[in-house]
Amino acid sequence: MVALMTNETPVFLRACRRQAVPYTPVWVMRQAGRYLPEYRALRAQHDFVTMTRSAELAAEVTLQPLRRFDLDAAILFSDIMTPLQGMGISLTFEPGPVVATPIRTREQVQALPLLQPARDVPQVLEAVKLIRANAPRNVPLIGFAGAPFTLLCYLVSGRPSKEFGTARSFLYQQTAAAEQLIDHLADAMAAYLAAQAAAGAQALMLFESWAGLLAPPQFRQFALRGAKRTFAALKATGVPLIYYAHQGSALMDEIRALDVDVVGVDWRSPLSVARRALGPDKAVQGNLDPAALYAPPDELKRQVEAVLREAGTGPGHIFNLGHGIWPDADPDAVARMIDHVHEASARARSTG
Amino acid sequence: MVALMTNETPVFLRACRRQAVPYTPVWVMRQAGRYLPEYRALRAQHDFVTMTRSAELAAEVTLQPLRRFDLDAAILFSDIMTPLQGMGISLTFEPGPVVATPIRTREQVQALPLLQPARDVPQVLEAVKLIRANAPRNVPLIGFAGAPFTLLCYLVSGRPSKEFGTARSFLYQQTAAAEQLIDHLADAMAAYLAAQAAAGAQALMLFESWAGLLAPPQFRQFALRGAKRTFAALKATGVPLIYYAHQGSALMDEIRALDVDVVGVDWRSPLSVARRALGPDKAVQGNLDPAALYAPPDELKRQVEAVLREAGTGPGHIFNLGHGIWPDADPDAVARMIDHVHEASARARSTG
Repeated sequence: MVALMTNETPVFLRACRRQAVPYTPVWVMRQAGRYLPEYRALRAQHDFVTMTRSAELAAEVTLQPLRRFDLDAAILFSDIMTPLQGMGISLTFEPGPVVATPIRTREQVQALPLLQPARDVPQVLEAVKLIRANAPRNVPLIGFAGAPFTLLCYLVSGRPSKEFGTARSFLYQQTAAAEQLIDHLADAMAAYLAAQAAAGAQALMLFESWAGLLAPPQFRQFALRGAKRTFAALKATGVPLIYYAHQGSALMDEIRALDVDVVGVDWRSPLSVARRALGPDKAVQGNLDPAALYAPPDELKRQVEAVLREAGTGPGHIFNLGHGIWPDADPDAVARMIDHVHEASARARSTG
Repeated sequence: MVALMTNETPVFLRACRRQAVPYTPVWVMRQAGRYLPEYRALRAQHDFVTMTRSAELAAEVTLQPLRRFDLDAAILFSDIMTPLQGMGISLTFEPGPVVATPIRTREQVQALPLLQPARDVPQVLEAVKLIRANAPRNVPLIGFAGAPFTLLCYLVSGRPSKEFGTARSFLYQQTAAAEQLIDHLADAMAAYLAAQAAAGAQALMLFESWAGLLAPPQFRQFALRGAKRTFAALKATGVPLIYYAHQGSALMDEIRALDVDVVGVDWRSPLSVARRALGPDKAVQGNLDPAALYAPPDELKRQVEAVLREAGTGPGHIFNLGHGIWPDADPDAVARMIDHVHEASARARSTG
């Protein structure tokens, strides 16, 4: 169903649709996480996998930052590997995901099961419902998944790696199998995200954490192929679609071809440059350097204002960090950042 | 002294100066390294630090790939941390560099000694002389150093890290100390590289391995500040100057301001895009995806041709990988790549 957008529509969702808003909405990648003492307190009692497998714990952790900060969106606490575990792929977190049997052959790709979200990841859908029942009405919930190429990196390499050499050489050595794996994962993530929307997620985001490993031709051939396929299947949900490509500075011309509402931009590309490359039809999300949270308060304010200035006063900007918040960030700095985004952006609208 | 460029001048040096060449010269980042069985045989007898501390071993390892491949340049075997060890900074390789006492205060920056190459790194200068005495006359030797910001990352963080969060927050927390450290390292690397040129190095390269951590304003403030200072001091050597910025796709407009002859480009930016951003006064070096060496032979040829096509037939292209060769690469694939660069680029000149 397509929701009507009115002045009652939360500011975050209006910004996703490039509608006028009274101030710039803001949320933080990994806002439910280790930098929060209340998260660490829960984590001391439960291991990471348990937290992704319990609807109650995932919902609680998702809600924690909303109690502390004036955030404009919530994002589901989960892991990009959770749906793959649901599909029966055996893995452990050490702390990055380590796959018991890496996928290296066409036969393994063809043997992968389909994802049936209600059967395979019921706890995620239950967490979505719990969060919707308990979050403030003006704070929409973002559902998310890993983008197909990023999941391929983990499944083929078998463990996190600086270069993901095994996955990258697989693209050249077994191109047909790689494309088939991308398509399979794209369909699985489409089913996963559609189920999150059906359970109540009000926006859907695909994380392409390893976009920066690829030159534009390979990005088109593998990553964009997968993301396009997933997003095409999600149009019918009617909720805003968001694509985040980490280290995507050289890929903006390619990403322009994606039919999404919002593109997440890391801190390396100035938002004015990203906007020019992406065209007027897409909102942008980002992109304060996560390191700027360590600046003295006045300098942090200047850095926030620099991001707002780069984004411009036109519609379609959601403030965020350019990458996930670091585990040793100061929650008080996060509070100052969020408040200053609201204040400075409201002021710019009234005076500009 | 400024060398005259004639038809007797090696093809690599002519390409650095954007002069006409009969074919595109090629060398390989980390060509003296673990993918070669003859390197592994030596390495089995000596640990890494011993190899960087022995002029004879460093020279031998530098010469190994020249015996096997039709390369157009040699690059000194060394480590970017070697001159810092020479300055008395205590570190170990595990296998990445781990600094015994990370630099986190202004007092530590001010206490850093100056580098005196003849006293502190005599083995490097001796290796340069040995290589020049034993390398073919048409194969020039490239001397190199780590760029100041990249060295700062290791010195402040203390060990390799995906995010180098400690170093990046240091830039915001202690900006003046960070700038002072950059300047000190820039002067040290200028002295180091000038000494390499005096000992016989025929081109000088600065590796900015961690350029990709910085947004353009911080890149200007720290990395470019340091690189400019080093290169300014090296103009008098008269040899071609090369700057390689890994993950520099969003930084090309900034790098254009550097007074260098050649810019190394990683595989993420098409060379046509890099050339447009850098302007007509700079040669480019790169940028085959290191993963392409794993492709079947015909596909590898197509990938080589795609890089040559992106570079165009104008002067000023040196072929290379877009990043260091991986330790498990096949030396036969390297030989095929080098030969195909020469053949295809000579053919393009005769027919185009």
